[in-house]
Order: sequence, then C-alpha cells, then structure tokens
Amino acid sequence: MIVAALKWIGGIDGFLELIDQRELPGEFVKLQCRDVEKLCEAIKTLAIRGAPAIGVAGGYGLVLATQRLTPDDNLKAGLACLVKTAEYLASSRPTGVNLFWALNRVRKKAEDFVAGKPGASLQQMQQVVLEEANAIYAEDVDMCRRIGENGRKFIKDGDGVLTHCNAGALATAGQGTALSVMFEAHKKGKKFKVYVDETRPLLQGARLTTWELKQAEIDVTLVCDNMSGWLMKQGKINAVITGADRIAANGDAANKIGTYSLSILAREHRVPFYIAAPSSTFDLSIKTGAEIPIEERAADEVTFLAGKKVAADGVDVYNPAFDVTQAADISAIITERGVIEKPTPSKIAEHLR
Amino acid sequence: MIVAALKWIGGIDGFLELIDQRELPGEFVKLQCRDVEKLCEAIKTLAIRGAPAIGVAGGYGLVLATQRLTPDDNLKAGLACLVKTAEYLASSRPTGVNLFWALNRVRKKAEDFVAGKPGASLQQMQQVVLEEANAIYAEDVDMCRRIGENGRKFIKDGDGVLTHCNAGALATAGQGTALSVMFEAHKKGKKFKVYVDETRPLLQGARLTTWELKQAEIDVTLVCDNMSGWLMKQGKINAVITGADRIAANGDAANKIGTYSLSILAREHRVPFYIAAPSSTFDLSIKTGAEIPIEERAADEVTFLAGKKVAADGVDVYNPAFDVTQAADISAIITERGVIEKPTPSKIAEHLR
Repeated sequence: MIVAALKWIGGIDGFLELIDQRELPGEFVKLQCRDVEKLCEAIKTLAIRGAPAIGVAGGYGLVLATQRLTPDDNLKAGLACLVKTAEYLASSRPTGVNLFWALNRVRKKAEDFVAGKPGASLQQMQQVVLEEANAIYAEDVDMCRRIGENGRKFIKDGDGVLTHCNAGALATAGQGTALSVMFEAHKKGKKFKVYVDETRPLLQGARLTTWELKQAEIDVTLVCDNMSGWLMKQGKINAVITGADRIAANGDAANKIGTYSLSILAREHRVPFYIAAPSSTFDLSIKTGAEIPIEERAADEVTFLAGKKVAADGVDVYNPAFDVTQAADISAIITERGVIEKPTPSKIAEHLR
Repeated sequence: MIVAALKWIGGIDGFLELIDQRELPGEFVKLQCRDVEKLCEAIKTLAIRGAPAIGVAGGYGLVLATQRLTPDDNLKAGLACLVKTAEYLASSRPTGVNLFWALNRVRKKAEDFVAGKPGASLQQMQQVVLEEANAIYAEDVDMCRRIGENGRKFIKDGDGVLTHCNAGALATAGQGTALSVMFEAHKKGKKFKVYVDETRPLLQGARLTTWELKQAEIDVTLVCDNMSGWLMKQGKINAVITGADRIAANGDAANKIGTYSLSILAREHRVPFYIAAPSSTFDLSIKTGAEIPIEERAADEVTFLAGKKVAADGVDVYNPAFDVTQAADISAIITERGVIEKPTPSKIAEHLR
C-alpha cells in the first residue's frame, strides 16, 4: 500500500486528515485538522512536511477558514477571511514557495469568482474554494504518478536502487517523486532492492522512507550515509534516484545535504544518477547552482540525538541543509512532463516550453 | 592538553587508571582498575577502546593478576596465574590482535626470566611483568609521537583538515595516530581548522574526537558524514588524515566505514589523503584489500539512537564496520618509521625492512 500523507474528508463542512509524521516510524497516528490553528501547528511542528504536501494542505486550510463564517457574513467578509487566513498560514513556513503559491491560487480563484458573480451566496464561494483546493490536490496526485511512469524504465529487474532523504508520498499529496518511480516500477512487477541513506541529521531516510517502502512491500535496506560509496564499490547499486528542492536553468540541482557526494560517488562507479521532481522545481531565474543560497541549520540538530548530547561542549558545527549537484553529473531529470536526459540549458528550456 | 586514555599509578602494588569513554563527552570520569575483572569489564563495555590502548591495558592486567599471589605462592604458581589471566583477558576482545600480542609478550618475558633465574623471588618476577608492561606503554607513547612528527609537515598554516572516526589519544596509550599529526602541527604553532566527521553509527568522531581536540585547544568543527564532500567542493579541506585498522602489502587500507568514500571525494577535489598508523598495522600476509574480511555489525546500531527506534519495524540493515581505501588513492602512509609517499608494494616492503 502506498500511504497518503493527507486527505480531505467530506464536503465544505469536512476536515483535513494527516499522517502525523512526528510519530513515525514508531506510531501510525492520523491527525484530524478541523480548524486553521491546528493545521498551522501541524505544519510548524513537522507533523506534515514536504513542500508539495504543505502546499496542498494550505489550500484546504482556506476551506477550514470559511467554515467559521456565519450566515450573517457577506461575500466581502468571506474574501477578507481568506486574505487573513492566507497570511496566517504563510507564516507557518516562511520559506514555503509551494505554500504561498497554493494559498494565492485559491484566494485568487475566490476573488475572481466573486468579481464575476457579485450576487453569489457565501456557500457558493465556499464551494469554489473547496474545488480549487481539490484541484491542487488532484494535480499533485497526477503529477506524482506521471513522474513515476516517466521514470520507471530506469529501474530494471534485479537492480539495487539508492535514495537519499524522503522524496516519497509523505512529502506530497500523491505518491511522491523519487519514490513514485519505485512505486511505478514495483506496480509493473519489477523486482529490485532499495537502499535508503538514513540522511543525517534529521534521519528522514531512516524514519520516513524505510517506513513508506515497507508499507508498499518494496524490499528495503537501511544504511548510514557513509556506507553508500562502499555499496557502489561492491557493485550493489545500479541507479541513484533522489528528489530536488530547486533546479537552476542549467540543470544544477539543490537537494538534501549529502546528495552532492552521492553524485560524485555515482559517477566514479559509473552508476546513473537521476533526479525526480515536478517541473515546478525549475527556477529559471537562477542560471546555475552557484546562485542557490544554502540554508544553514541549528547546531543542536547534529550535537543532540533523541535528547542526548553526543558531542563535546561548545564544539562548532557546520550544518548546511542542502547542497548542489552539478548538471554534468545528472544522468536525467524526470518530471511529470517527461525525461530530460543529460540536462543542458536548451533541453531544459525546451522541456518547460 | 592532550589527554591520556590510560596510566599505571604506582609500582607493583599500583593500579590502572582509565578515562571512562562510555561517559564522554558528557562526563570526564576516571576509572580505577584495581583487579583484572574490572579491567575485563572496562574492555568489554568500551570504557577503554582502540586496539593499541587495549593492548597496553592488557599488559597491565597481568600486573594486576600478580597482586593476588601470596608469599606462599611459588614461581610456578606465578607463571600459571599469568597464563590463566592472559586467556581470561584475551576473551574480552576476541578480535584484538594487539591485545593478544601484548599479553603474549609480557607472559613470555616472565617465563624467560623464570627459566633464566629459577631461584628468583616472586616479587622479582612481578617486577619483570611490570617493567614489560611499562615498556609496551612507553613504546606506544613513542610510536604515537613519531607518527605526529613525521606527518606534521603535511599540515600547513591556514589549512582545513578533515578526519573520520577517532584515531586519537583515546585509542592509544600515547597521543594517537591521525590526531597525533594534528597535535604535533599544533605544537609547532601552526594555525589550522579540523573538521570532524561524526562517524555513524557509533559517532566516535562526534563523541570522542571533538572532545579530544577541544581539550588540546585545536579549532574543531563537527559535521555529519554526508557533508564532507560539500566541504571539499567549497575548497574548505586541504588534507584528509585518518587512521587505519589493517594495511595490505600493496597499501590498500581498511579503516572505519566511510573512509573509502572520503578517499574518492578527496581525489575528485584534488585533496591529499593521508593514512597515519603504526607500522604494525601492515599485514604483509595480505596482498591486497580484497582479501581483508569486513565485519558486519548489529542492525540496532543503526536503527536505534540513544535508545529510541528511528527506522521502520523489520527493515533490513547493512552495517559494515570497515571499508577498504585503494592504495592508489592514498597520497602517503605515515608511520613511526617515516612516510611512504604514493605507496607501492616495493616501497612498503622497503619501509618495513
């Protein structure tokens, strides 16, 4: 079974159900968000994570907001509520480009509806908001599936496939990006083994990816990040497939820290290296990876484990969240539109046209 | 200050004092071993670790054993006690080549003494045992210092130096191997920065190496293993220096898992890669690294962190303790005898002659 990170239950009076990812892999708990505050808290505390999943959840957050309107409120009050809620939800993840995009899209749809039908009922506006949130959800599900279908040819029977971090169903509304490729290969009956880097410091590979793959009954083996090179040396890896957070116009791809090292090790061992990501991941305003800013995160993510200090007092820590893989080391970028083999600026421009 | 992992306090009635490495880096606790059982427990529970340190401790364990002999015991009883204790201590670390070597060396010295002086007193034999244990200790201290002196030229002012795992004073009786090179460069007033891989799964880099380097007032920055390649890409690393567990006749070197990946990443970024290890690390009976068996360790080292489960139930784990770095990717091997640049079988044979 491929898990679903989030799902809207019911109609305009419904609620958003999430897998509480804070509890994984220990407990499988579903969280019901029946108001915006609870959703905001879920985003802030990483109960839900992954840029596409948070974007979809944000859209539904606006539906939840409209549930508080009373029959006395007019359309103007309804639109004001959407604007205010969108600002509030955006504050839950200040770097969430997908979240801002989804909130704006739903808000604008409602505004356009009201502009075109000034005499509509509040309930009709609510219905428009829900339908737009549902549309974003459905597009994400479709996008994920297409990425998987476009990429599955790169996995062959008997392969060992390595992935890093979590680019799975838990990060999207659909079945993920890198993992979608594996799910689609699995659906086709291909037999292969997935090796998962634990992905320090936050262990998304160990905590989330192994759990998702087990749920889908795919053969999965967990390794520490420093073991991947040795796996390749032994010929156990036939493909590396990861997601991406941002891809420059030349194909340089920012992804979870450690991806760059994997790309070098893959080239050394003649293992193809694939990026699977929605076409919305491309940021053509950025020429090369050198222009992508790298967020540095808190030292205690590295120096504490499950609440226990594991390094000397006062030690300096370097904890970049991402690194940038060079386009030249990417065998192909797989999107919902198709595959860009050996990415170049012109192939990418063509792909996105 | 460079710490001392172990020290014999007093004469033949003395005791062995250890830094309790189970408590590092949270607490700096000294453990007094006044009998063989306590020492055996300390080795088994990793209060003391590192092959050279355990070897030296084993020698002193035989001194502790002789303290139980009474004035009624004769020399024969004394030798029998040494044989029995050596067997008992050897069982504490069944793969400890250095431990077996040290135990045999002290036992044999006592046997030779008794054979040559059948009329000697038990106390005289005890003195011989202590002196031989002291000799092993002193040789280790001297070996470590020489490795540092031979290697310090490879660290230049302003360098960033990367190390992996713990090849420091905590692993030897002296000031370590890879870290000794840093200690000697520091003594010469060189200013440099050391980056330490945390070294999953057991985190010896985070727990032990950062602590040792802080104690010695060397500038130290902790990173996760998957960040080293990105550090190199940014030009922050000018040398990689690690220890080794076993080196084949052709220069292939087994060391903590992750070292192989570092060697490939170092070559990619034109960063010199050094191994610092005693000449006793060479095993000329092994032609190449392909013949070195790789121990696989328990899955729960990877799936549990500080007692907390961090991976899906029932997930497979691949947890090799070591990997093998190819001689062609080693810029130099630094031993107490000198330096083997670009190691080859003939240079190694010459070095060990």
